[in-house]
Amino acid sequence: MMKDNMLLYYQQVRNLTEQHCAPLEKEDYVVQPSPDVSPPKWHLGHTAWFFETVILKQHLPDYPVFDYTFDYVFNSYYETVGSRVIRTDRGNLSRPTVDHVYEYRKHVDHYMQELIKNNISEAVIQLIILGLNHEQQHQELLLSDIKFILGHNPLFPAYKAEPLKIATEPFTPTYLRFNAGVYQIGYQGTGFAYDNEFGSHQVYLENFEIASHLVTNREYMEFMDHGGYEDFRFWHAAGWERLKQIPKNGPLYWHLTDGIWQNYTLEGLMPVKLDAPVNHVSFYEAYAYASWKGARLPTEFEWEVASSQLTWGERWEWTQSAYLPYPRFKIAEGIAGEYNGKFMVGQQVLRGSSEITSPGHSRPTYRNFFQPEQQWQYTGIRLAF
Amino acid sequence: MMKDNMLLYYQQVRNLTEQHCAPLEKEDYVVQPSPDVSPPKWHLGHTAWFFETVILKQHLPDYPVFDYTFDYVFNSYYETVGSRVIRTDRGNLSRPTVDHVYEYRKHVDHYMQELIKNNISEAVIQLIILGLNHEQQHQELLLSDIKFILGHNPLFPAYKAEPLKIATEPFTPTYLRFNAGVYQIGYQGTGFAYDNEFGSHQVYLENFEIASHLVTNREYMEFMDHGGYEDFRFWHAAGWERLKQIPKNGPLYWHLTDGIWQNYTLEGLMPVKLDAPVNHVSFYEAYAYASWKGARLPTEFEWEVASSQLTWGERWEWTQSAYLPYPRFKIAEGIAGEYNGKFMVGQQVLRGSSEITSPGHSRPTYRNFFQPEQQWQYTGIRLAF
Amino acid sequence: MMKDNMLLYYQQVRNLTEQHCAPLEKEDYVVQPSPDVSPPKWHLGHTAWFFETVILKQHLPDYPVFDYTFDYVFNSYYETVGSRVIRTDRGNLSRPTVDHVYEYRKHVDHYMQELIKNNISEAVIQLIILGLNHEQQHQELLLSDIKFILGHNPLFPAYKAEPLKIATEPFTPTYLRFNAGVYQIGYQGTGFAYDNEFGSHQVYLENFEIASHLVTNREYMEFMDHGGYEDFRFWHAAGWERLKQIPKNGPLYWHLTDGIWQNYTLEGLMPVKLDAPVNHVSFYEAYAYASWKGARLPTEFEWEVASSQLTWGERWEWTQSAYLPYPRFKIAEGIAGEYNGKFMVGQQVLRGSSEITSPGHSRPTYRNFFQPEQQWQYTGIRLAF
Amino acid sequence: MMKDNMLLYYQQVRNLTEQHCAPLEKEDYVVQPSPDVSPPKWHLGHTAWFFETVILKQHLPDYPVFDYTFDYVFNSYYETVGSRVIRTDRGNLSRPTVDHVYEYRKHVDHYMQELIKNNISEAVIQLIILGLNHEQQHQELLLSDIKFILGHNPLFPAYKAEPLKIATEPFTPTYLRFNAGVYQIGYQGTGFAYDNEFGSHQVYLENFEIASHLVTNREYMEFMDHGGYEDFRFWHAAGWERLKQIPKNGPLYWHLTDGIWQNYTLEGLMPVKLDAPVNHVSFYEAYAYASWKGARLPTEFEWEVASSQLTWGERWEWTQSAYLPYPRFKIAEGIAGEYNGKFMVGQQVLRGSSEITSPGHSRPTYRNFFQPEQQWQYTGIRLAF
Repeated sequence: MMKDNMLLYYQQVRNLTEQHCAPLEKEDYVVQPSPDVSPPKWHLGHTAWFFETVILKQHLPDYPVFDYTFDYVFNSYYETVGSRVIRTDRGNLSRPTVDHVYEYRKHVDHYMQELIKNNISEAVIQLIILGLNHEQQHQELLLSDIKFILGHNPLFPAYKAEPLKIATEPFTPTYLRFNAGVYQIGYQGTGFAYDNEFGSHQVYLENFEIASHLVTNREYMEFMDHGGYEDFRFWHAAGWERLKQIPKNGPLYWHLTDGIWQNYTLEGLMPVKLDAPVNHVSFYEAYAYASWKGARLPTEFEWEVASSQLTWGERWEWTQSAYLPYPRFKIAEGIAGEYNGKFMVGQQVLRGSSEITSPGHSRPTYRNFFQPEQQWQYTGIRLAF
Repeated sequence: MMKDNMLLYYQQVRNLTEQHCAPLEKEDYVVQPSPDVSPPKWHLGHTAWFFETVILKQHLPDYPVFDYTFDYVFNSYYETVGSRVIRTDRGNLSRPTVDHVYEYRKHVDHYMQELIKNNISEAVIQLIILGLNHEQQHQELLLSDIKFILGHNPLFPAYKAEPLKIATEPFTPTYLRFNAGVYQIGYQGTGFAYDNEFGSHQVYLENFEIASHLVTNREYMEFMDHGGYEDFRFWHAAGWERLKQIPKNGPLYWHLTDGIWQNYTLEGLMPVKLDAPVNHVSFYEAYAYASWKGARLPTEFEWEVASSQLTWGERWEWTQSAYLPYPRFKIAEGIAGEYNGKFMVGQQVLRGSSEITSPGHSRPTYRNFFQPEQQWQYTGIRLAF
Repeated sequence: MMKDNMLLYYQQVRNLTEQHCAPLEKEDYVVQPSPDVSPPKWHLGHTAWFFETVILKQHLPDYPVFDYTFDYVFNSYYETVGSRVIRTDRGNLSRPTVDHVYEYRKHVDHYMQELIKNNISEAVIQLIILGLNHEQQHQELLLSDIKFILGHNPLFPAYKAEPLKIATEPFTPTYLRFNAGVYQIGYQGTGFAYDNEFGSHQVYLENFEIASHLVTNREYMEFMDHGGYEDFRFWHAAGWERLKQIPKNGPLYWHLTDGIWQNYTLEGLMPVKLDAPVNHVSFYEAYAYASWKGARLPTEFEWEVASSQLTWGERWEWTQSAYLPYPRFKIAEGIAGEYNGKFMVGQQVLRGSSEITSPGHSRPTYRNFFQPEQQWQYTGIRLAF
Repeated sequence: MMKDNMLLYYQQVRNLTEQHCAPLEKEDYVVQPSPDVSPPKWHLGHTAWFFETVILKQHLPDYPVFDYTFDYVFNSYYETVGSRVIRTDRGNLSRPTVDHVYEYRKHVDHYMQELIKNNISEAVIQLIILGLNHEQQHQELLLSDIKFILGHNPLFPAYKAEPLKIATEPFTPTYLRFNAGVYQIGYQGTGFAYDNEFGSHQVYLENFEIASHLVTNREYMEFMDHGGYEDFRFWHAAGWERLKQIPKNGPLYWHLTDGIWQNYTLEGLMPVKLDAPVNHVSFYEAYAYASWKGARLPTEFEWEVASSQLTWGERWEWTQSAYLPYPRFKIAEGIAGEYNGKFMVGQQVLRGSSEITSPGHSRPTYRNFFQPEQQWQYTGIRLAF
């Protein structure tokens, strides 16, 4: 990547984070209504901290650290860099203030741009690209978390006025058929990809069919109306147990008001759009829906093989695959080694991308992953046979 | 009370709440690091809500309600006024914004002052006085909660620069002796007092001795140094159980750094002042200290009888008395009925007042009360025999 | 007490414990369905352990300890005697077997009787009497715990066939009036009493009225039928919170089956007897009932003053008094010091006795105490004004 | 299977369950020291209940049900057969008694043998075989649970005197190499296999190496001695979190006494045998050990392909594979449908068998599975590259 391009790329990604925060009140930056959610202030600080810790402190001589306490406050899971704030405590920190965190970003941006303008090695370029991809991941989490914060406020404030891009025209879904055989899986390009996508390898797949489109709200409502949430036969034992402990009867953000299903969106509370893909369902729900339909979820390999023929990009799609290492996967030395490998137990792979994924951040080999009970991401359902 | 006096009194009390908040950043208003603590924003809104709900809505014709959703957001325990926000959720609410809450206070103040300037009945005057005393109670909680929020931030920001009024000169404590006999207890004046102070009645007390001064940090450190936290014999069974679950070895806000006990105060972190009264101890700790000294805590009746001869006002003082109703105590009709009676189980009485108690808010018959494990109030120890 | 009398007294008390266990299957001795409940095997072992530890090991030269591990297994709260089994773990211990524990009792009884036949000092006699009173307390707990174990088994097995002695004839309750004045409280006799009853002292009481009889099931049902469990105004805040967390709508052991309230008793499941005193209510329920009736519970002092004129003995009676030390109460040295004092926080006093209290174990000055939420003891309600 | 063979097979399997219980005291049958563990009494009753419910009630006309309440007491997860006892409550049930449960087994055995002697259809034969395999699974759980019950008793009672069959001679482990290619996976025989083994299908494997033997206690101790439990880099994030919440520093049942590692076994407490395979490690521990060695765990497919050349049978072996459905896996109708499919989330596959697995119960295609934190089964480690 040429130096000018890198500078522009850096600025674009970093600006987008702040653009995402523009509609917020200062108070919205601070709260954490669930342990899964991080306060927006933390996302702002943590993504800057990543550049400071991994790049500036190591590769810019005489870099003046902005504030030594930030190492403690904005570290994430990265156990290699000292002790960290307990995750559920992030919502207790009123300081550093939002303004102070924006100053921190300015400080980091200033020195990062200086660094980029100088002669930098290929290794540092790769770290910057990693940092920008890291920031893009947080951009999506930031929007999910903002939605959770505003969507759990009894006043249901809107995040912005104009609706997002999702088309909700009726369509005719079809099933695409693929033949059994050995297929190549994993990233083979020359651009950026995460370590969990490398280790390109072959898998043998049987004949399979996969839906061209995602399951819609209309279809999911049928499942709800036919008692899908009351019949244990469609559910994993763990999903059913959870349902009994935390009773629910529909996707996250749905509220039944006077017989009408309302849906909190970033534009506020509005009636559920029947022809839009269902959103904010857990893996347990996706599996139960598929079982009820006599179908199943695709594996991540089937999805990847079929991806060029699918309509995708509206929602992250739960797959039947657990999040496991590809052959020859090695945990890297240093901070990059903490990125993915240590999460490879108890999580499910999601493929695709969502309407709030940052532009250019996903690709057919991209492997997203969450715990099976999570609903607060933009997650949908595609069926397979 | 004359009308002009009432107006001034109203303004003074209400202003003090906002003065207490002046040093805060907007972010400090929002967080709730413990279920016992309320965000400052909530105190601001709740005290205004009290005037709106109990007085303006009932007694000012054509009063325009500021925001109907606030009834839901700023209600406290008052079960008579509709459903309320679950207490532990207060820290999740980024909206209404701090600015909006200040507008709410202005709105309420405007109409309250209008009301006061008009012809108001004695009954309404009594409600206003109740509201102002309620606000004063929240002023003290507000300061305790601000201290907790800032004192649990890893940056330990100071709330203000100049130290508070506490004298820390060495002194010679003495024990005052009182003879057995029947004493009169409870409020008999004509000013304001809470319902839990009325029901003036007689109690028979045996001979007793009570310390002229509170236990100091120096004295409490001896208890710590002599293994007071490791010897179950000094503790209630419930206090000892708690100690094993949540290990601690000193008052709240004390941090042992390089062999020096530091103490977070509203002026920031500083070395413990040895001759100041010990602060932020639980009833369990107060009891254990007294046991270790071969003494006991005074009953609330002994304290009241002796109060005119005691040095008090620096700290709320744990007593040996459980918080129980006085004879002829009746739970009042309506919202006032929820004020005190329903807490009369499982709590201990504290007598006195603290350095952050609002001016004029306490008196010798005043009965404060908290659960025995609480430390976040300004609580100290006085011994008796 | 003469030596022969002591021997007989010892044998009678010890035998009663084993008689209480006679109807049990071996499996009933082992389980612990709630942390408050202890397995019968534990009661058997613990009461023997008390004699072994406090008396035989100290006062019988050459006493052969039965099994050194029992010190660990059968210790209770007595922190002075080494580490103890975590209380909730008692139900996990399949060994020592029931037969082995009975052998333990035989062993202890053998040496205790030898000791009693020899020349024993007055001090040892007092310890034996303490041990027998301790055993009587456990006899009552044993029956409560057996009831809980069998009453929470889906098969509802009966403990015994013939009903207990409770009269259930209708009666006309009256209110007894007492005049204000200074009364003497506490034990002044020469027989055995617990340390919490000593410190005889004066209290000043106002005029009061107290019911001659306990509240009946019929009366309590009226409270239930009139929505007593749905109206927060009658409840302590802590009681109401608990009700929302653990919903219930009547006393422990009541089951509404086909519109009929059934009651699990030691004779099995049977319809509620309307004219019997209500049983197995918590302090929260007792208080709520009294509030609903516009009455209150008596203080423990009122109860003691009135006791000679009351019909009592059917149920332990919740009082309005928290469990606090009497004047001059001192925690004794050694194991006796752990008996009562350390529980003097957060508990309510009960006066009287119940149908399962061991013969001769209670008296007008006896102070029983439990946490306000407890229901599994035989606890009822008496009203006062 | 011929009728006589079936009768013998039935009797042998059923007898083994009772032989396993022969060394128990009656009290050992009842307790449940952890939610994962079931009381032996429950295993005895549940395996009989399976035959009664699935076979006798359906296929033996005029079968007299032994006790209708047992449906409630001995149901497991099988949601199709009415409500079930909450799993953590199994340890609270003192009734039905152990003797009564043995009568239940006799009753069921009597009618089952009658049924087998009559003309039975192939479908019923298949159900009996399923029931016997089900019972064999419970035999292994029964032994694991007995070990847990006795091994968590402070007296450490031995289950039996003579040691089990494990060889502990030193050996020279080697690594076996396999070439990349498409392999056939899953059960293709004609005997009994579980539904999760069917769906024989092809997988593509890369070149791999797999250890001939399991990791020994000696090797695992090196990991412990080199700080394996203190270095987060070797652990999954979830495993590390758990380690911080429930600190441990070695396999289950290991106790460090006077500098010697002792190991509770079914023969009692004894020093760890250095050359025996390590036992009772969680998946998290197996993964951490492999990471520390720079190796990995095999996938279940690699294991199956290599199985004919491996020394196996001493321990269940954690694999890198999550427990997921094979192609064409369909959840069966009725009770069999609840057997496996609903557990296919959040669990890891184990291959092989253990020293306490019932004779003839395992095979190379057998898929065992547990949650990654479980330690109470006989679980060991095999490395791969």
